Amino acid sequence: MNDRKAVVIGVGPSQGLGAALARRFAREGLKVYVAGRTPQKLEQIAMEIRAAGGQAIPIATDATVEGEVISLFDSVSGDPGELDIVVCNVDSNQRAPLLETSGDMFRQLWLQNAYAGFLVGREAARIMTRQRHGTLFFTGASASLRARPPFTAFAAAKSALRALAQGMAREFGPQGIHVVHVIIDGVINGERSRNAFTEFVAQKGADGLLDLDAIADTYWLLHKQQRSAWTHELDLRPFKEPF
Amino acid sequence: MNDRKAVVIGVGPSQGLGAALARRFAREGLKVYVAGRTPQKLEQIAMEIRAAGGQAIPIATDATVEGEVISLFDSVSGDPGELDIVVCNVDSNQRAPLLETSGDMFRQLWLQNAYAGFLVGREAARIMTRQRHGTLFFTGASASLRARPPFTAFAAAKSALRALAQGMAREFGPQGIHVVHVIIDGVINGERSRNAFTEFVAQKGADGLLDLDAIADTYWLLHKQQRSAWTHELDLRPFKEPF
Amino acid sequence: MNDRKAVVIGVGPSQGLGAALARRFAREGLKVYVAGRTPQKLEQIAMEIRAAGGQAIPIATDATVEGEVISLFDSVSGDPGELDIVVCNVDSNQRAPLLETSGDMFRQLWLQNAYAGFLVGREAARIMTRQRHGTLFFTGASASLRARPPFTAFAAAKSALRALAQGMAREFGPQGIHVVHVIIDGVINGERSRNAFTEFVAQKGADGLLDLDAIADTYWLLHKQQRSAWTHELDLRPFKEPF
Amino acid sequence: MNDRKAVVIGVGPSQGLGAALARRFAREGLKVYVAGRTPQKLEQIAMEIRAAGGQAIPIATDATVEGEVISLFDSVSGDPGELDIVVCNVDSNQRAPLLETSGDMFRQLWLQNAYAGFLVGREAARIMTRQRHGTLFFTGASASLRARPPFTAFAAAKSALRALAQGMAREFGPQGIHVVHVIIDGVINGERSRNAFTEFVAQKGADGLLDLDAIADTYWLLHKQQRSAWTHELDLRPFKEPF
Repeated sequence: MNDRKAVVIGVGPSQGLGAALARRFAREGLKVYVAGRTPQKLEQIAMEIRAAGGQAIPIATDATVEGEVISLFDSVSGDPGELDIVVCNVDSNQRAPLLETSGDMFRQLWLQNAYAGFLVGREAARIMTRQRHGTLFFTGASASLRARPPFTAFAAAKSALRALAQGMAREFGPQGIHVVHVIIDGVINGERSRNAFTEFVAQKGADGLLDLDAIADTYWLLHKQQRSAWTHELDLRPFKEPF
Repeated sequence: MNDRKAVVIGVGPSQGLGAALARRFAREGLKVYVAGRTPQKLEQIAMEIRAAGGQAIPIATDATVEGEVISLFDSVSGDPGELDIVVCNVDSNQRAPLLETSGDMFRQLWLQNAYAGFLVGREAARIMTRQRHGTLFFTGASASLRARPPFTAFAAAKSALRALAQGMAREFGPQGIHVVHVIIDGVINGERSRNAFTEFVAQKGADGLLDLDAIADTYWLLHKQQRSAWTHELDLRPFKEPF
Repeated sequence: MNDRKAVVIGVGPSQGLGAALARRFAREGLKVYVAGRTPQKLEQIAMEIRAAGGQAIPIATDATVEGEVISLFDSVSGDPGELDIVVCNVDSNQRAPLLETSGDMFRQLWLQNAYAGFLVGREAARIMTRQRHGTLFFTGASASLRARPPFTAFAAAKSALRALAQGMAREFGPQGIHVVHVIIDGVINGERSRNAFTEFVAQKGADGLLDLDAIADTYWLLHKQQRSAWTHELDLRPFKEPF
Repeated sequence: MNDRKAVVIGVGPSQGLGAALARRFAREGLKVYVAGRTPQKLEQIAMEIRAAGGQAIPIATDATVEGEVISLFDSVSGDPGELDIVVCNVDSNQRAPLLETSGDMFRQLWLQNAYAGFLVGREAARIMTRQRHGTLFFTGASASLRARPPFTAFAAAKSALRALAQGMAREFGPQGIHVVHVIIDGVINGERSRNAFTEFVAQKGADGLLDLDAIADTYWLLHKQQRSAWTHELDLRPFKEPF
């Protein structure tokens, strides 16, 4: 019987950050709800976690739909145990000169990078404020801090997410909820980037991309921080990365 | 015959910032398109401007609707003359604890404070890049820089607007478009605040609220900056305002 | 008889920012005290100002020496009239990898870019708080906001100046003193840069460097802001400048 | 025989951050050089560490004197082993309205909070760049990010330190040196604050002050970060602390 639960939303490929976080939390003994849009990917990751002796429950969820997020957290809170960790890891980027950015693209990027964070954060906080504890993570990006073309629409969305995380930290910290905004500044060494920019990845050399497990380590350690000395915001960046 | 045009979007009451900017630009000799959601308000301001010898054209526009913004700028570019100034002054705030913020409220604040800015900015830039000149203003707020409950949703939206303005400045500055983000940090001495917080306004004392014409002066002077020394971002704040 | 005074400290070559500010204030009718380390330069600028019908008093001052700054302001306050404007324009930069930065170089850059600002700011505030008005300018740089090698020591000093300006704005704003921090982000089109980086200057093309008079315009307009809508911080940057 | 070394500079009372960091590093098996101005305090902490089975060497050092810092690092590099960690924990604060801040006070705060950081950072980097690894910590404060009276002089000094840390991270990160700036935002539960603000401490309640060991945990974990995902800057703040 396990009484500690974690939710990771924005789980995609097995070699992706969502999956790495889920695996890490499972290894620490938490029962992990893996949520994302593609059922097969969730199933696969849940299987891997179970094969390694952990507990995982896949729940297909579109994090941009209010009803689906509420329903996900209803399922989670229906199960026994405390909700220790929630990660909103939904992330979606597209490059476009501003004059070629459609209203729809601007809205989609906001829905995935900001609105999903709001829905997930609110529903997580609803449970955590009752418990009076819990860690709530938002995964940010370099663009959370600065807007550079051709990523202006993405930056607008990630900046909104950052403000959300900050407002939530101020509102819920005193109630015992640890809200963390992690700024990933660089390219993650995952399936997506290895497929998308093969040459770029080769140039970066050893440790030039963010290692999935290294990122997951830091998330875990932030979760373990004692509440008298909490971190709200930090960056994670390969040692070679110019900034 | 006048060949210089300005567009102010987000024009509401006669004693509001949108109207003050429109009056100021008209006084400097520009033909001003006053846009907003309420036709009667636009008509009144246009009449005031004409009574003072200026030129004004009211165009009812919902700045959160892509088609309406495109159509507004089609009208503007159909008229003779250069488009010197566009101000996106749409602003909408609501206070709510995060747990009481609905998905709809979060989305509405984003539509008005951020998405409208994107639509207006893009259509303005479309015209101005052809001209290779023009000044594009976005009106921000204290919340553009920091998120404090119960204004987290508002801050998320205004932070997105700030990122948009920054990305646009980087993309369009070298093409001769001056993109300015004005952070209004304090309460504007307008109709809205005088009605909403009478007591608060009284306490603030002389010059404790931002004077409409004083704000408009700074917008005008920023427009007049020579392009070798442009300002992208600045704050405006009453001398007494704690920050 | 003239009853308005301005002090500009950090006046060097005639084609430099200190001199341009002094000329501008003189043209607006202020009696200008031009201060800097090199008497001949001060004399020349004072002569130019007088030749153009203005009033100027050169006072050789090492702004990093407490006694000299106090003595400068004693002279100024001994004269009749109100002290409207003080500009601390002292600026000194050096490039060096950190391992080749001596303790002395680090200290010198701090003395000129930060400590001088403190001394000038404090003595200006002493007079202005008695008057209950006045504008106090600090000239910052790109490095005020971010530290990049080989300019780390310079950035450390300019960041200190920025913090000083911010703390002073918070302390003295409510007493009617307008404290402004101007971030010059780019190369000024003055004697110094034209001599130092001829090729670079040529590449920048028209309006690629900050024009002295354009900068001075903005300083003047900031001084004229009505106190209900003051700017504390803004950037000035050529339209082409990447940022 | 131990081949890993750490240096902590700015070690004062046994119940202070410097001492807590030294104890923590010793417990992890590093030989720790404890440096500070007061030999008796250093001796006591070294004795405590040895009593607990660790290795500690007290070296009285005034971190604001270039020769003393160089000599400290000469001693350290004369010993066998690699220099894994250096912490510059020198911190000195004083409150004063700006008009009552003497040139000497402004300079002293800079010497201790910024110049000491420069000397320590440079000498640490000299050794670490030869090794091509090592973690270099700078302890910052809330004032590193914002200047509020009556702490303007302190903020100016801490802002300089922050810029130093940022410039060093950019310069030395690609050489394998992990430079971290830790922003302590709140009051540390140490000897100094318990003596100085008894009432304040009582009001804060459980975990309302930063626990020494909790802070030390985070320093250690940052040191252990894998270099593909390094943190350069983070805050540490009690869960109740308004920010």
